[in-house]
Amino acid sequence: MAKAVLLLLLVLSLLFLTLGWAQQDPERELEQCRKECLQRPEGQKHHCQEECERRYREQQEQQEKRGRGEEGNRKGSEREEEEERRRNPYHFTGERFRERVRTDHGWVRVLEDFVKQSELLRGIANYRVSLLEANPHTFVLPAHFDAEGVFYVDRGRGTITFLGEEDKQTYNLEQGDVIRVHAGTTVYITNRDRNEKLQIVKLFQTVSTPGRYEAFYGPAGRNPESFFRAFSDSTLGASFNNRETETLQRLFEHQDQGAIVKAREEQIKEIGRHASSGGGSWPFGGGESGGPVNLLRQRPVHSNQYGNLRQIDENEYPHLRSLDISVALANITAGGMAAPYYNSRATKVAVVTEGNGYFEMACPHVGSKGRKQKGQGTVEQYERISGELRPGHVVVIPAGHPALIVASQGRNLEVVCFNINFRNNQRYFLTGKNSIYRNMDDEEIALSFNSPVEEVRRVLNANKDEVFTRGPEGGREGHRAFA
Amino acid sequence: MAKAVLLLLLVLSLLFLTLGWAQQDPERELEQCRKECLQRPEGQKHHCQEECERRYREQQEQQEKRGRGEEGNRKGSEREEEEERRRNPYHFTGERFRERVRTDHGWVRVLEDFVKQSELLRGIANYRVSLLEANPHTFVLPAHFDAEGVFYVDRGRGTITFLGEEDKQTYNLEQGDVIRVHAGTTVYITNRDRNEKLQIVKLFQTVSTPGRYEAFYGPAGRNPESFFRAFSDSTLGASFNNRETETLQRLFEHQDQGAIVKAREEQIKEIGRHASSGGGSWPFGGGESGGPVNLLRQRPVHSNQYGNLRQIDENEYPHLRSLDISVALANITAGGMAAPYYNSRATKVAVVTEGNGYFEMACPHVGSKGRKQKGQGTVEQYERISGELRPGHVVVIPAGHPALIVASQGRNLEVVCFNINFRNNQRYFLTGKNSIYRNMDDEEIALSFNSPVEEVRRVLNANKDEVFTRGPEGGREGHRAFA
Amino acid sequence: MAKAVLLLLLVLSLLFLTLGWAQQDPERELEQCRKECLQRPEGQKHHCQEECERRYREQQEQQEKRGRGEEGNRKGSEREEEEERRRNPYHFTGERFRERVRTDHGWVRVLEDFVKQSELLRGIANYRVSLLEANPHTFVLPAHFDAEGVFYVDRGRGTITFLGEEDKQTYNLEQGDVIRVHAGTTVYITNRDRNEKLQIVKLFQTVSTPGRYEAFYGPAGRNPESFFRAFSDSTLGASFNNRETETLQRLFEHQDQGAIVKAREEQIKEIGRHASSGGGSWPFGGGESGGPVNLLRQRPVHSNQYGNLRQIDENEYPHLRSLDISVALANITAGGMAAPYYNSRATKVAVVTEGNGYFEMACPHVGSKGRKQKGQGTVEQYERISGELRPGHVVVIPAGHPALIVASQGRNLEVVCFNINFRNNQRYFLTGKNSIYRNMDDEEIALSFNSPVEEVRRVLNANKDEVFTRGPEGGREGHRAFA
Repeated sequence: MAKAVLLLLLVLSLLFLTLGWAQQDPERELEQCRKECLQRPEGQKHHCQEECERRYREQQEQQEKRGRGEEGNRKGSEREEEEERRRNPYHFTGERFRERVRTDHGWVRVLEDFVKQSELLRGIANYRVSLLEANPHTFVLPAHFDAEGVFYVDRGRGTITFLGEEDKQTYNLEQGDVIRVHAGTTVYITNRDRNEKLQIVKLFQTVSTPGRYEAFYGPAGRNPESFFRAFSDSTLGASFNNRETETLQRLFEHQDQGAIVKAREEQIKEIGRHASSGGGSWPFGGGESGGPVNLLRQRPVHSNQYGNLRQIDENEYPHLRSLDISVALANITAGGMAAPYYNSRATKVAVVTEGNGYFEMACPHVGSKGRKQKGQGTVEQYERISGELRPGHVVVIPAGHPALIVASQGRNLEVVCFNINFRNNQRYFLTGKNSIYRNMDDEEIALSFNSPVEEVRRVLNANKDEVFTRGPEGGREGHRAFA
Repeated sequence: MAKAVLLLLLVLSLLFLTLGWAQQDPERELEQCRKECLQRPEGQKHHCQEECERRYREQQEQQEKRGRGEEGNRKGSEREEEEERRRNPYHFTGERFRERVRTDHGWVRVLEDFVKQSELLRGIANYRVSLLEANPHTFVLPAHFDAEGVFYVDRGRGTITFLGEEDKQTYNLEQGDVIRVHAGTTVYITNRDRNEKLQIVKLFQTVSTPGRYEAFYGPAGRNPESFFRAFSDSTLGASFNNRETETLQRLFEHQDQGAIVKAREEQIKEIGRHASSGGGSWPFGGGESGGPVNLLRQRPVHSNQYGNLRQIDENEYPHLRSLDISVALANITAGGMAAPYYNSRATKVAVVTEGNGYFEMACPHVGSKGRKQKGQGTVEQYERISGELRPGHVVVIPAGHPALIVASQGRNLEVVCFNINFRNNQRYFLTGKNSIYRNMDDEEIALSFNSPVEEVRRVLNANKDEVFTRGPEGGREGHRAFA
Repeated sequence: MAKAVLLLLLVLSLLFLTLGWAQQDPERELEQCRKECLQRPEGQKHHCQEECERRYREQQEQQEKRGRGEEGNRKGSEREEEEERRRNPYHFTGERFRERVRTDHGWVRVLEDFVKQSELLRGIANYRVSLLEANPHTFVLPAHFDAEGVFYVDRGRGTITFLGEEDKQTYNLEQGDVIRVHAGTTVYITNRDRNEKLQIVKLFQTVSTPGRYEAFYGPAGRNPESFFRAFSDSTLGASFNNRETETLQRLFEHQDQGAIVKAREEQIKEIGRHASSGGGSWPFGGGESGGPVNLLRQRPVHSNQYGNLRQIDENEYPHLRSLDISVALANITAGGMAAPYYNSRATKVAVVTEGNGYFEMACPHVGSKGRKQKGQGTVEQYERISGELRPGHVVVIPAGHPALIVASQGRNLEVVCFNINFRNNQRYFLTGKNSIYRNMDDEEIALSFNSPVEEVRRVLNANKDEVFTRGPEGGREGHRAFA
């Protein structure tokens, strides 16, 4: 019953909110935000001010976009967004990430809960995607997660350290590395490059609380907060066998630079001194020991002038076994495309790391207009799900759903893919030389297409490419081939 | 918050709907439905008209049943149905199926989502049941499913073809065959009999979207719609390396006969020419190769004059292993019954394929009146769940729940059972020769029944049958033995 | 839509309920309750009267506590409870158990559904905790459960019998025994001690209906009700091949003493005559045969003057394998504490069996105030979850969450722990000699704590104890160390 009351309250509060919304004044907010920044520690004031201004600009843009601040339009726009979510719950642009860490030296952003997006994504409810960016010569503070992790190094050179009860292991990280981070393992990362940012794409499989995960910082202070600060004075004193409250207070007060801090070159060097260089292909140079395996050094599974696909699964990297996940990297040549295909069991969570393009997917689960009249004529059974792809966008392609990806002219499109539920998965290609439909016999073709066999065969056999092929000439189109 | 608003809207719209409901006019609907049929392709006009009339009759029947069109009664009837669902969420009659395919040559019907029925069925939320009926000499168009499937051939003779990237495999199907259809595998079926219908019972375990599955038709047209039609002109052209839009348009326009089409005898023969005849008991003649295994040719697990039970599990058919399911066929002699028993871990989804009868089950989870006063006197702890059984009915018997099934006089009752969560399952029989309670010692009997031991033993030992026994004399009773 | 209407109704009915609440009159209720008792069977009248009075006292206490019966305060108190639940969904006091069985000779209480408590506990949604207490020389009637069970004997000496189709097995039970009870297995228990109560802590993993489980009593009568009573006269007659309705009626009428009944000494002896004495450490004297393994006889995993920890997992007791659970017993010396630690994958469900104390846990999932301003200064990221511990209290500690437990002065604190999701679990200790943070190098310490290395090392190295250490001087504190 508490739930029902809650709902009523929610409804009412929403009404008030909507009414009061128009009163917001960006200028005044900016003013206040700046004032608050003055009370921050020295190292953060600058970033705080920047952040205030960024928000101000965002608000202004939104106001413009929504059309001269009129109530109606704003609500219309929100309704549109809602509607877009409902129609396409598989595509996530950059705004769908929330900042969890932001310092002057980097940030962590986490993609929203898949299930909040749509019930259709319940199959991957336990997975979360996040991005880390750390500036040159920085240190990401030690933390453990209540989730199993797979990290992909998209760019840069770093180190990663796993802290155990008996010892610790440090591995070098470089572009293309895939590394498994076990739930509960305390881990810290450095960017050891002098100039380049370190960018990591992370997939988490939640462990303690389905769909949620958090970083637990122990050796830290006020920011990031150490979880030791949650204990009481007396238990903390007993735990450390130290009854001088001030000493302990001091210990967990000093760190206030946030979870990503600047490190001096000597510090970075010292931390990486005993680093194993992983990055080879297993079992040489990585993998078995817990170190990374490099995706870029795998022999491509498919490759031609229009693109290539590399992949690491439990065979290449036994540490992926218990997760039942594979990691793949598709590099689609500018102007090329990944031809229509589907996975038999795996759901693909694809994160764009470079380039531009778009995807199209056929989905029978979204939209309901067709279902009603089904069996009585031509029906709109498959909805076209489609969207632009830019770096940081995420696309979910569920098992069984035919999809294709097109790279824009001018620049290769690179996509790192986490294939969830990978065991016994099979990829089926629908056009080109390895199309399954080419194996149909004449009668089957005639009956299926209700068309002359030769005509069908001519179409099915025209494309000689496998997996990757030449893309369409123009840009993305707004409509289905068959309206 | 969006959810709360949605809910408010739902509430309001429901109010309006309820008010407006009485205005529906069946005659006018019939008229309009017929008009719309005239715009259908030639091959469908006839069926469309029939369908219009069927709906009209249904509406009239409902109006009659609900009592001369009065508002109050209709609502009463709906409330009753709702109440019946709540009281017995384990029994599904024919109306609980929704038509997904309907052509002049056959149909596919899917049982509603178990969880929509009741939260008590959440344990089988990922499973769906469907039925296929195809007329003599017909072809069911190629499709893949985003779900793992187990098919049981209830009647008729057909073929099934699995289409792979390298080759295809065709198997003959006959009554009693069980065949595993892997998620993502493109599959098509023929009815190769000249006279008899082909009837298949399907169990699906959903893969991409929990509780939902769909057929994905590739080689098709307007009806069933090919999923290729969801792509845009330009990407479709690129995929097939064919920039003549009209050619592609034509290819996916012609099929408009629906997913089950008539085939000529030569076509059926040609398709079945290389068919392996499965149907043996594994490993001879089926099973290991991916072909079917025949349930009717299994040696019965239990058998006497009142009925028999045959079963296929992962030992007989290794392809069932990853699903953790067994398939069983109970044939209860007319006037006989399957004595009370329960499964220790498996939840049984039973589909009646022949005959009439009824079931009874004891359920502590439904109904709440008893719980309140519990521990302070006699309480109604177990609700009797009961229902008539006819062909096409589905019954769910959860693990641990004692249940029995009675076959009516005059005709055997045949039930095909999918046992979900089968590994380490144990069947426990409660009466008859193999009743577990016969193994109790005197003191235990005295204490449990609070009755003289000899009296109890006389009752426990009276029935010498195992598993199947003579049924009750009269028909189904409306009430519990102990009111 | 039905759901929305339901919600509306709920909201309305809640309003009415709240308004009508104050009208309850404890005295009148007591009167009526006593009257109803007079109609109970003789053996229950006494207990029934007692129960009426207990309730009356409870109501009075509540009224007092809530402040002279004023409306506002009562609602305030309810709101507080609600708020407390929201803030601390991990701690369960005795009131959170519901009585399922209550006779003059014992009771069974079941802890409420974890998910009803909070969505944060969804990871253990399928688990339920219950407690059994049986007086000296009593018999707990045969029943099977639709759930897998692990029982821990907290106190007393009993026997447990598993009833199979082929035979039955009886094992002696004594304090510290852990025994696996398979779903569907009919089981009965005796307290074979003349003086001491038998107390059992049970963990159930639900099988048929997620989050729910029930006992199914077959050999019983009116109370506990036999599930045979749910069948109809005619099917029951057929099942037992006995058409004399009265005989069957009589059989299932006599038992009305409830699920826990008094047994005579000879009966107890007779039942235990063929009991195997388990209780050894596997494989000698228990375990492999299905009998119990004794936790108290295990060599402690950790032990010092402040406490010790014993544990049984699938290696000690193969019957735990399919459940992926371990059972541990922590005995914390009076005035000692279990130092801060966390599990990497396992969620711990801890039941206090003796002594008093309290726990503290750091939790980032509860509370939302901090999140908002995150990344811009010091934030309250980890909420302190804390609570008193007394016998019968239950605490859930999810994977990854640092927690500590303190034993009060004067008496050891004993906690039995079910570690769910135990495979590949790792315990990480955060302070003391085996703290993982001691393995950090100088630069890492300096960067993490933003403090001089020596100062940090001095604190990290001060406590030489492992796992258990001296507790804090005073009692439990109300506030975080760092406000």
